[in-house]
Amino acid sequence: MDADAKKIALRMIPYGIYVLAGRGPDGTIAAATVNWVTQTAFAPPLVVVGVKADSQSYRAIQSAGVFALNMLGKGQEGLAFDFFKPTQLEGGKLNGEPFHAGTTGAPILDNAPACIECKVVEVVARGDHHIVIGEVVEAHVAKAPPGRPDDATLEMRELGPKVFYGG
Amino acid sequence: MDADAKKIALRMIPYGIYVLAGRGPDGTIAAATVNWVTQTAFAPPLVVVGVKADSQSYRAIQSAGVFALNMLGKGQEGLAFDFFKPTQLEGGKLNGEPFHAGTTGAPILDNAPACIECKVVEVVARGDHHIVIGEVVEAHVAKAPPGRPDDATLEMRELGPKVFYGG
Repeated sequence: MDADAKKIALRMIPYGIYVLAGRGPDGTIAAATVNWVTQTAFAPPLVVVGVKADSQSYRAIQSAGVFALNMLGKGQEGLAFDFFKPTQLEGGKLNGEPFHAGTTGAPILDNAPACIECKVVEVVARGDHHIVIGEVVEAHVAKAPPGRPDDATLEMRELGPKVFYGG
Repeated sequence: MDADAKKIALRMIPYGIYVLAGRGPDGTIAAATVNWVTQTAFAPPLVVVGVKADSQSYRAIQSAGVFALNMLGKGQEGLAFDFFKPTQLEGGKLNGEPFHAGTTGAPILDNAPACIECKVVEVVARGDHHIVIGEVVEAHVAKAPPGRPDDATLEMRELGPKVFYGG
């Protein structure tokens, strides 16, 4: 396989930007910016997230069995970059962002335009990132987008001309 | 869970458009337009595709154990709509499109700007669409995009203001 062809072809997949967040049973909160997300079924509503296997977020989600996928909106590049950093809980804020617990207990960012809460139904432990399969059990929309919902989402390409995660 | 909130939040996930294609061991070829795609690992390079469990493509891919994910490019809306229809092999063309067999035997559309070939490593049979996990074993780029690869990909939103698959 040609390494360049693999990189280009895989980078043709367009991605939105999300903050994945979980709170472990010991109360530890972890949140991270992710992009490897897709829905995979309507009934039940399932989503898949590719999560770095050696990350804080992975451990929090694995142990909690639930997670929140915070959708980021246009203009929230700063928020995306904040969650590239390790999670810090300070003054009741998560990496400087106000948040609250969702129905499942998973952390929801107050400034996310929308969020889904998922129950982990299976984790496929393959590769350097594992495949977390979540059933959507709760959904919140803080501000309904005026047009197509996918036009309102922050996209990978908006993080910078050289920013990629994939390939 | 509020049904509208679920729909809006899930529809915030932006998608590219792909033609998933497989050739069963009996020679039957099936191809379908899909959008539920994400990479999930770098090493090995894995992708996940949500595939309708009662579809021709699902059966072909399941039995073949390999598939091709043809990336569509800007302006290829017609091609995307052609593969919403059941697969027809006529005059050596697939739904009117010229194609050839890839390294794995999976059908590659001559007009796709790029394509990956994958070995099915696992299928998670959950929901009305199943989660097909593929390891990328071959990649082809017919025409390297001049800018960001994800800027060259046909997107769901380009199929029409009311076209969604998700929610």
